[in-house]
Amino acid sequence: MKKIAILGYGNIGKAAEEAIKAAPDMELTGIYHHNDCLDCIDADAMLICTPTREVQKFATVLAARGICTVDSFDIHGQIWSLRTALDPVCKTNQAVSIISAGWDPGSDSMVRAILMALAPKGLTYTNFGPGRSMGHTVAAKSKPGVKNALSMTIPLGTGIHRRMVYVELEEGADFKAVEAAILADDYFAHDETHVIPVESVDALNNVAHGVNLVRNGVSGETHNQRFEFNMTINNPALTGQVMVSCARAALRLKERGDFGAKTMIELAPIDLLPGTTEQLVKTLV
Amino acid sequence: MKKIAILGYGNIGKAAEEAIKAAPDMELTGIYHHNDCLDCIDADAMLICTPTREVQKFATVLAARGICTVDSFDIHGQIWSLRTALDPVCKTNQAVSIISAGWDPGSDSMVRAILMALAPKGLTYTNFGPGRSMGHTVAAKSKPGVKNALSMTIPLGTGIHRRMVYVELEEGADFKAVEAAILADDYFAHDETHVIPVESVDALNNVAHGVNLVRNGVSGETHNQRFEFNMTINNPALTGQVMVSCARAALRLKERGDFGAKTMIELAPIDLLPGTTEQLVKTLV
Repeated sequence: MKKIAILGYGNIGKAAEEAIKAAPDMELTGIYHHNDCLDCIDADAMLICTPTREVQKFATVLAARGICTVDSFDIHGQIWSLRTALDPVCKTNQAVSIISAGWDPGSDSMVRAILMALAPKGLTYTNFGPGRSMGHTVAAKSKPGVKNALSMTIPLGTGIHRRMVYVELEEGADFKAVEAAILADDYFAHDETHVIPVESVDALNNVAHGVNLVRNGVSGETHNQRFEFNMTINNPALTGQVMVSCARAALRLKERGDFGAKTMIELAPIDLLPGTTEQLVKTLV
Repeated sequence: MKKIAILGYGNIGKAAEEAIKAAPDMELTGIYHHNDCLDCIDADAMLICTPTREVQKFATVLAARGICTVDSFDIHGQIWSLRTALDPVCKTNQAVSIISAGWDPGSDSMVRAILMALAPKGLTYTNFGPGRSMGHTVAAKSKPGVKNALSMTIPLGTGIHRRMVYVELEEGADFKAVEAAILADDYFAHDETHVIPVESVDALNNVAHGVNLVRNGVSGETHNQRFEFNMTINNPALTGQVMVSCARAALRLKERGDFGAKTMIELAPIDLLPGTTEQLVKTLV
């Protein structure tokens, strides 16, 4: 049994706990909070379920101690820099960090890579939602004056999205200042964003989400090769599950001496799954 | 530039030729026929585009000479035994063989594995077609008395299929004997199969195919996680392209000293693609 621990116990941490308990080859050895001491962790791998912007700090500390980590860092434009920062720490300390291990970035990235291999020329559009974006919601919540927030992602087609941000203000907070802070955040600066004040965010909350990922491309010289990947899911449950599957892959890579920081497109799907190669090839191939 | 050669020049061989020519990092160094001498091949990797039942013989000969191979062996029940036979030959001779590298088995297998990692409990149904099955068509053509054949796969839902086999008989051939030979073949023995005599198979031919792969499963303790993968494609064009992408992966694995026979679920998607890790992570993750 692999020893897995959790750092951060919000929506994703709770879902990860359930996924670890459901895994036949893992045991949960601890749940840590942001400000817990991490010196005496009894775990082969740690799932970092903190807000995205705290990931690098914790992953670096843990990798430096040879503990494998998995995170779901979700700022697409900063993933390569996170990988670059963590990779040497992992290699020096014989650890593996799987970064950006959610569904997007994460399993959608694997699908995008596979579709590119199937039809190298063409366009892929990733359309999200409608659904609650956890990363955007946390970013909105972090603004001064915001008591609670919900950021909904609305697909407008061809990979273009609208952000509908519902904010419940703290008493006396200035809505215009809150709105300006949200619109200026890098999470929102690139999309059409509407900030709407509401009485109760709790009354709106629903963690359903989805994706519609389409590619129309060319295999060799043959055009009109069409691919589509759809899902409708409970968002934290899927993210927690992906992180647990990636913890398994991290430990397999470590066993093979393949240390470093990696994204999910750098993982073989078989390494995400429990069971022997023989069982999995016979069942899935 | 990686040197890639082709063995077998039917539908898939021709499509593979186009995919090699379209690849930015490969050059085509030869097209060989079944009975050509393979002693003086100038290639890093060979795409074995022969009928499935000739794959093992050629892959073994080539791997024994340290040449990487890719095939699209498509008899699901015999894939593990092919892998088991080739793996030690590859390891002894520092070669990599990617087996069953088509779309099913192949890229669909990768999707099935990923969906299993996203929702470990549940059911996946792979529904094929309607479309022309190349493996089944070749099997039907191989029967005595058959001048030409076309095997269409018709999806009946929940992974159940009907095989519609259109046969053009040689002069004087006994239809009943042909029908019996087809029905007894392991390719057809497990499905509802109808054999229909026609004047001209050529008049029916169309290499379009497709898949509808669905999973409804459980992530952690959360049910009703729904996933769907669809494609409508030119079948040999996709198969040829997948083989070319897998040749790239084979040569990357060989460079890393990771020798052996592998199926596509054992490959990281990034290894299927040209470009650097940095380019691909920045583009796809």
